[in-house]
Amino acid sequence: MALELIPDFATGPLDRYRKNVSFDWKKLKIFLETEEIIKFVNELCEEIKQHPILCPSLLTQTLDDVRHNTVKKLYTFLSIPAIESTYTSKINKTLAISTILYNLDTDTMVKMSVSIVLFASTLITMGTERHLSYVQDVLAKKVCSILPTLILYSSSFQIVGCFCLTEIGHGTNARGMRTEVIYDVNTKEFVLHSPDFEAAKCWAGGLGQSATHAVVFAQLITLDGIRRGLHAFVVPVRDPNSMLPYPGLIVGDMGEKVGLNGVDNGFIMFNNYRIPRENLLNKNADVNEQGQYITAIKDPSKMHGASLGGLSSGRVNITHMGYVYLTKAITIAIRYAGVRKQFGPEDQEELPIIEYQLHQHRLLPYLAAVYHLKFLAKNLNEVIAEMFNNSLSGKAIHPDLGHEIHALSSASKPIAGWTARDGIQECREACGGHGYLKGIFKCRFNLPKIKKETPLLSSCWFRQLKK
Amino acid sequence: MALELIPDFATGPLDRYRKNVSFDWKKLKIFLETEEIIKFVNELCEEIKQHPILCPSLLTQTLDDVRHNTVKKLYTFLSIPAIESTYTSKINKTLAISTILYNLDTDTMVKMSVSIVLFASTLITMGTERHLSYVQDVLAKKVCSILPTLILYSSSFQIVGCFCLTEIGHGTNARGMRTEVIYDVNTKEFVLHSPDFEAAKCWAGGLGQSATHAVVFAQLITLDGIRRGLHAFVVPVRDPNSMLPYPGLIVGDMGEKVGLNGVDNGFIMFNNYRIPRENLLNKNADVNEQGQYITAIKDPSKMHGASLGGLSSGRVNITHMGYVYLTKAITIAIRYAGVRKQFGPEDQEELPIIEYQLHQHRLLPYLAAVYHLKFLAKNLNEVIAEMFNNSLSGKAIHPDLGHEIHALSSASKPIAGWTARDGIQECREACGGHGYLKGIFKCRFNLPKIKKETPLLSSCWFRQLKK
Repeated sequence: MALELIPDFATGPLDRYRKNVSFDWKKLKIFLETEEIIKFVNELCEEIKQHPILCPSLLTQTLDDVRHNTVKKLYTFLSIPAIESTYTSKINKTLAISTILYNLDTDTMVKMSVSIVLFASTLITMGTERHLSYVQDVLAKKVCSILPTLILYSSSFQIVGCFCLTEIGHGTNARGMRTEVIYDVNTKEFVLHSPDFEAAKCWAGGLGQSATHAVVFAQLITLDGIRRGLHAFVVPVRDPNSMLPYPGLIVGDMGEKVGLNGVDNGFIMFNNYRIPRENLLNKNADVNEQGQYITAIKDPSKMHGASLGGLSSGRVNITHMGYVYLTKAITIAIRYAGVRKQFGPEDQEELPIIEYQLHQHRLLPYLAAVYHLKFLAKNLNEVIAEMFNNSLSGKAIHPDLGHEIHALSSASKPIAGWTARDGIQECREACGGHGYLKGIFKCRFNLPKIKKETPLLSSCWFRQLKK
Repeated sequence: MALELIPDFATGPLDRYRKNVSFDWKKLKIFLETEEIIKFVNELCEEIKQHPILCPSLLTQTLDDVRHNTVKKLYTFLSIPAIESTYTSKINKTLAISTILYNLDTDTMVKMSVSIVLFASTLITMGTERHLSYVQDVLAKKVCSILPTLILYSSSFQIVGCFCLTEIGHGTNARGMRTEVIYDVNTKEFVLHSPDFEAAKCWAGGLGQSATHAVVFAQLITLDGIRRGLHAFVVPVRDPNSMLPYPGLIVGDMGEKVGLNGVDNGFIMFNNYRIPRENLLNKNADVNEQGQYITAIKDPSKMHGASLGGLSSGRVNITHMGYVYLTKAITIAIRYAGVRKQFGPEDQEELPIIEYQLHQHRLLPYLAAVYHLKFLAKNLNEVIAEMFNNSLSGKAIHPDLGHEIHALSSASKPIAGWTARDGIQECREACGGHGYLKGIFKCRFNLPKIKKETPLLSSCWFRQLKK
């Protein structure tokens, strides 16, 4: 019986409200989540409890400790059989795993998303067969059909990726990127070069300390002198044994941020850095041994779109994060408001603050927003997953679908970011001083931490909307 | 010549805007700040540079390190002759010092404000001559006439104070406080008692680890059984040598917060804890040796107001903090917008983003708000200082002035908190990813840090407005 999958709440001061509810909350939960997912989540949570390293730290750690612990947690996640064995192409289970991991440890989840999922999915979708060696661990698991929501990777992997698009001088205006790449017909190599510091690639997650390889977007200038626009290359950046950068590269750390410090964002400059011709991700365009440029996409604007289309799933993931974060915060704030009593009729017991209309007015719209964001993220994820699977299996895709997903994800990311940002702040203030305690994480919810990191979600909205 | 007190800006990419300005910014600065204050600030900054410990730390520290360093900085501040020797009763200099110290290290400034200024000013304004021994270091400097904006204290002081009003169960509703105090006529002592955990005093800044004494507000029940409302007592809480709490007390730490961790907020419970009769701060009401209650204030509501009136200056300080924080953020964001170029007319140089109307619309209202908050905080500080000095020197004060300051400060605190909160967030997002770097503090401005702490300012608005 599905209802038995959901334990009762512990009795306590919220009973007075829970007993008066006009519907069966367990049935609603089953309707929203499905019995299959609830069972799956229960099993996964039991498995996670077996790993003490995944227990959240209550105190501030130094930057080094945060990063080391994030890598350890990442490998722990990847070793969990409940994730690996039950992982299927069903997007609902993928989302359930994401929800748990964002709740448990956003740093690790984001590091996994960027260093493994985004890197591998870019190679698979923009590259061709010759690039599959970089993702052999992924392929060995035969799970590539579930990209781009893939989170599996062999725990023995030697390749840690990162994604280098943004430059110091250009983020929003992606067409203005100035990292250049030319082809040397004598050595059959591409030569990457950063003309100045403003052309340094920056903010790439994982590049600061841990990446061995990077996907690098650069302006391709062919032998005929024509600028062909942004093309992507897979570039070795560190010796996987010594973890030292290769000669010809300047690689550095962006430094400590206000949040998400488990992700080591970095920058990189290329000084006529050579890579094999085969490292061009050549699904949409290629340069042959003689240096001729070959592509079926004649319109440079369409080439630009094809190069950056893979970022849509990242934006949808961020939409999903907004939902997860705000869900945490609104749950804390509403429960607190049902327990916290202050003021009331003279000579009678004080009233729970949720009884005040002002307090309801502050919180309940964000409770509604949680459901909106949940369905928005779920729907977009389903559409992207279907498009992706159709693409990989060679099925026809409506020519406008990619553009539409680009537009919708570019809107859903800031909407979710702003809503979560403002909602979490409202929830924090609605909890008085307690909203500012780190120890609130003890109850698996962490207002200070989520607030710190949520603004990161919405900072790039301008960039997305201008595209 | 006053203009020479203000150095030119270094030349750089902002020159194009600075050269086109239609007014002399140095003259405006002198008009706003006065030559005297500019000179004073220059000297103080030079002095501060002599103390390496005051240099901001760029990396996250552990909680213990933050707290230890804050105490060291506090004593360093107090030892600076430029503060001590030039400190006068002029409120403008007091505000200038506050502005510098909030910019440099908010944790230390708040710790100083709470542990020393608020504690000492409460004893002096609510107590009588018999309480002056607790603040003898302050009095030795003969600077008591400048309270409540006093920041001086003998660097040899053995007494570190804290201010215990809020309880676990009651913050907003101050009349609902449940810590009780009765008088024992046999021993001539007051007996403090916390009926349960919800009556524990909490959030008191400095109580967590460093306070030796507390001002405690408790419901006084006189021998005739009448509840007399909140009265303040000075209570020894820790042995100044061992720093261990005295028997009869449970003292603890509220734990790590999202910001301001240099201030060790704490909680305390009293188990029939005895203090001498003389520890009642007895300016407004007293209990004589026989246990009779003596007061000139007959209206309990007026007694309540007299007990809590001293908090107005704290609210005005927070108004001032909002001004200082937002000034930092808007300066960074507008300068960045003048330098950062993105998009523009085809085949021409890209435009600085400040040229876009949308960007102006986001930032310029907060530039205006900075001036509003500056004058608001300055005016309220001046009025409070004048009232205070008149009170201490026995001059007549308009009977409504205290109420008006209470109302205005209760409005200015959340207005400043919300404006700074939203403005800083807007500024952060207007700086793209760079707004999320901790290293931005290198330029003496620190968006991540100020954002983290600003929400603390506005969390208690409800409490203030309900009073």
